[in-house]
Amino acid sequence: MTTDTPADPDCIFCKIAAGGLPASVVYTDDDVLAFLDIRPITTGHLLVAPRRHAASLAELDPDTGGQMFRTAQRLAAAIRVSGVPCDGINLYLADGAVAGQDVFHVHLHVLPRTAGDGFRLSAQFRHPDRAELDATAELIRARL
Amino acid sequence: MTTDTPADPDCIFCKIAAGGLPASVVYTDDDVLAFLDIRPITTGHLLVAPRRHAASLAELDPDTGGQMFRTAQRLAAAIRVSGVPCDGINLYLADGAVAGQDVFHVHLHVLPRTAGDGFRLSAQFRHPDRAELDATAELIRARL
Repeated sequence: MTTDTPADPDCIFCKIAAGGLPASVVYTDDDVLAFLDIRPITTGHLLVAPRRHAASLAELDPDTGGQMFRTAQRLAAAIRVSGVPCDGINLYLADGAVAGQDVFHVHLHVLPRTAGDGFRLSAQFRHPDRAELDATAELIRARL
Repeated sequence: MTTDTPADPDCIFCKIAAGGLPASVVYTDDDVLAFLDIRPITTGHLLVAPRRHAASLAELDPDTGGQMFRTAQRLAAAIRVSGVPCDGINLYLADGAVAGQDVFHVHLHVLPRTAGDGFRLSAQFRHPDRAELDATAELIRARL
């Protein structure tokens, strides 16, 4: 990896993309790169990020977003046959502080899973009726 | 939506895609559709799924995967201006039972988030050294 000028000099993922910070890189192309999270939840926990700085989903070029997902699919397949413990995969992305985003350069987590690995989602599921679901759908559809 | 023959007659998402089960659909095109989760974590909780049956990330055509992600970006933007409470968004996908997959037709969750909405991730973060990270990266990179 060559050292380049990071697009945003204050962004650690821009620095990684530019080769200016150490990272355990697994995949790179013209649009995205993937490297190991330095604070992994499980062994093989990867982050897929765009090379070009985008703080959020709203700033992310959709074609680059598509390439992030395709890359995550390839990485998931590779993890499953790599010898890293993996009986399942979670993809996860946090857009905004309230959603748990910590680095404001958008990134997709690729998380190998095994039984008893300590990762857990907690949620309170609701059971709205069809009329409420349809009304919510209409609110969103109207803004597409 | 017209009623069509579902690709997999036992799959509820194939039935939804074929118009054979009620759903609050927000978006549809030739490759993907998005509809409200009937057991939402928060109001506006959407699922983006391929029209063509794919049980897993491994079975999912990568271009359709890319379209699922681009669609999730569009939906996230729409949710944010829809009036549905939303200060952030999580994208989430479970691939395999151990990862929490419950319907074996691959789907990407689009989850509006607000402070105090009851959704939480629990994990035990590790702090491997660079040598361990590099060794793990090499295992995965070798299978790409």
